[in-house]
Amino acid sequence: MKANALVYSENELGKIDGKVANGLVRYSEKYQIDGIIDSTKAGLDAGEYLDGTKNGVQIYSGVDDAIENLGYVPEYFIYGIAPLASFLDKKQRAIIFYAMKKGMNIVNGLPEFFTEDEEFMKKAGEYGVQIYDIRKAPQRKDLHNFSGRINEVDTPVIAVLGTDCAVGKRTTAVNLVAALKQQGINAAFIATGQTGLLQGSKYGIAIDVLSSGFATGEVENAIMQSYENDHPDIIVVEGQGALSHPAFTSSSAIVRGAMPDAIILQHPPRRIKHCDYPDIPMPTLESEIELIETFSKSNVIAITLNHEDMTDDEVENTIVEYEYKYELPTTDVLKYGCAKLVEKLFEVFPELLKSRSVIWQPQELK
Amino acid sequence: MKANALVYSENELGKIDGKVANGLVRYSEKYQIDGIIDSTKAGLDAGEYLDGTKNGVQIYSGVDDAIENLGYVPEYFIYGIAPLASFLDKKQRAIIFYAMKKGMNIVNGLPEFFTEDEEFMKKAGEYGVQIYDIRKAPQRKDLHNFSGRINEVDTPVIAVLGTDCAVGKRTTAVNLVAALKQQGINAAFIATGQTGLLQGSKYGIAIDVLSSGFATGEVENAIMQSYENDHPDIIVVEGQGALSHPAFTSSSAIVRGAMPDAIILQHPPRRIKHCDYPDIPMPTLESEIELIETFSKSNVIAITLNHEDMTDDEVENTIVEYEYKYELPTTDVLKYGCAKLVEKLFEVFPELLKSRSVIWQPQELK
Repeated sequence: MKANALVYSENELGKIDGKVANGLVRYSEKYQIDGIIDSTKAGLDAGEYLDGTKNGVQIYSGVDDAIENLGYVPEYFIYGIAPLASFLDKKQRAIIFYAMKKGMNIVNGLPEFFTEDEEFMKKAGEYGVQIYDIRKAPQRKDLHNFSGRINEVDTPVIAVLGTDCAVGKRTTAVNLVAALKQQGINAAFIATGQTGLLQGSKYGIAIDVLSSGFATGEVENAIMQSYENDHPDIIVVEGQGALSHPAFTSSSAIVRGAMPDAIILQHPPRRIKHCDYPDIPMPTLESEIELIETFSKSNVIAITLNHEDMTDDEVENTIVEYEYKYELPTTDVLKYGCAKLVEKLFEVFPELLKSRSVIWQPQELK
Repeated sequence: MKANALVYSENELGKIDGKVANGLVRYSEKYQIDGIIDSTKAGLDAGEYLDGTKNGVQIYSGVDDAIENLGYVPEYFIYGIAPLASFLDKKQRAIIFYAMKKGMNIVNGLPEFFTEDEEFMKKAGEYGVQIYDIRKAPQRKDLHNFSGRINEVDTPVIAVLGTDCAVGKRTTAVNLVAALKQQGINAAFIATGQTGLLQGSKYGIAIDVLSSGFATGEVENAIMQSYENDHPDIIVVEGQGALSHPAFTSSSAIVRGAMPDAIILQHPPRRIKHCDYPDIPMPTLESEIELIETFSKSNVIAITLNHEDMTDDEVENTIVEYEYKYELPTTDVLKYGCAKLVEKLFEVFPELLKSRSVIWQPQELK
């Protein structure tokens, strides 16, 4: 039974800084998303607003509006905005205080920890609610150094990397895992960021709050847990940022900790500058592929598109162009699904064919 | 006036895990090193033991031996061992407690923070001494996100990277800065690890305790501080680990935060496996150079050797071999100094010639 939750994403739903909310509208295993708070889109259906298909997640103008329309107070209030700014301002804090006052527990994916904030803890005590800082790193004694055990994993490990932050890596990875499961394949998803964890990923760690010494070890450990507990047929690891990104090194830690056997690269063809860094141009696909392959000693086996600022025609033309230019299957999983990716994985890892569900297996083996 | 200090390095002086002590014996701007504690080498001169030349730093068998011979209690006790293990054991803790009991303030470069340890803080209170966790990261509110300001730096920035941990990157960088200063060039050193900070580096940060989100920003900030405050002619940044290292991603953060214009690569030709990871082979120089140049978009301009397990002949032969094979000046700065590196820097950055001290400048300009 999923816990009911409201997701706060004022002014940001569908935008880059609203990526936590966008992700939860699309996929949520842990929480039942009762509604989104974004007064600029109040009254709309969040699924329809994001992807053109209604999914019953209503957008509300505020906490009161949501509670009044739902007829009850959801158990959780998820702060669904991920800004670059280090700290929330007074107005943003006041909104969370109000949610607590209404009796909602707070789920916070920011690197600013509310449980270390006196005012937040005082309010939580006052209103009898809990605060969950989901991005807070485990205590040092519970963290893992890199051990090299990842070398023992004989299951294909795929990393979905990208050319920038907030570009759809997690969305592609989650969709790919679902598509593989539909084929009867036991595919595991390893989250490396707050949204994947909020969506209910069984294994993973918010890597960007870990220090360099533990980041690789924690990625390795999450994969080892999945590998040892669930014996998956394939492991799909969510990437972070970009390996070439000037500001973030999470991708390095993911590549080193996961030692992927193959890489899928997510790219927004129309993005000119890095998100949050308007002075720094995006890398080219060529240079990112070269960098990834040199750094990881693995191959990029497919390209997935983020269609921001693109018409349907442009997406289709870009797919044709990239497939010709890079000789790699190219798709937009939100528009066209994951068939090309699954097919490519069967080609690169033919042992996966044997893992397909028994319903199809006899036919395949004829 | 430097503060007096004893450096604890039991059984590890001259070894990899004793690298903090090794560094402080060789160079110390902040502390007057009164002695080293390592009972396995008691009675020897640390400079002679390490590099064949006496420097008056005596090795003692223990705290009592040191105090008795010195005739006073040094102000500071520096814990000079850097193990991979996450926490000190009881015996190691007891030694530090004893140093406190004797009245010494504790300087701790471990990622295990004594100031967050109840027993340590209780003892410190009891004995009236201070504890300094020099690797403890600044508070989140004082940390810097990457800003891109590094792009404004028009001074050459050099990174000394390596093919492994504990390979001599800092030693080469510190020696290079000293050699440049001898030429009258205002060279700045940016520390990125505990030893550089303990040695008294004016700018720097212990990068391995910083989270991915701040590591690049703090490297950038340290360089910007140096650049803006001291207007150096050249900035030399200490590397950490190795860009190819399976476990650590500090190098990624240093390359991204520093955006070096050129790279010097430190390498131990006789090391077969990564230090602390005996199952993982060392990278080849070829692959590391390719990786560094692809990742940084800068060039490796020189190779510096760590002569561990090498005879003098072997070092000389390797220098000849590498200079032929890689067409890069190659040296061992502990044996042969930094002349080749300085010469190469003048070639790559001819503007440095103008910064040479006025004593030589007129002759140069003839």
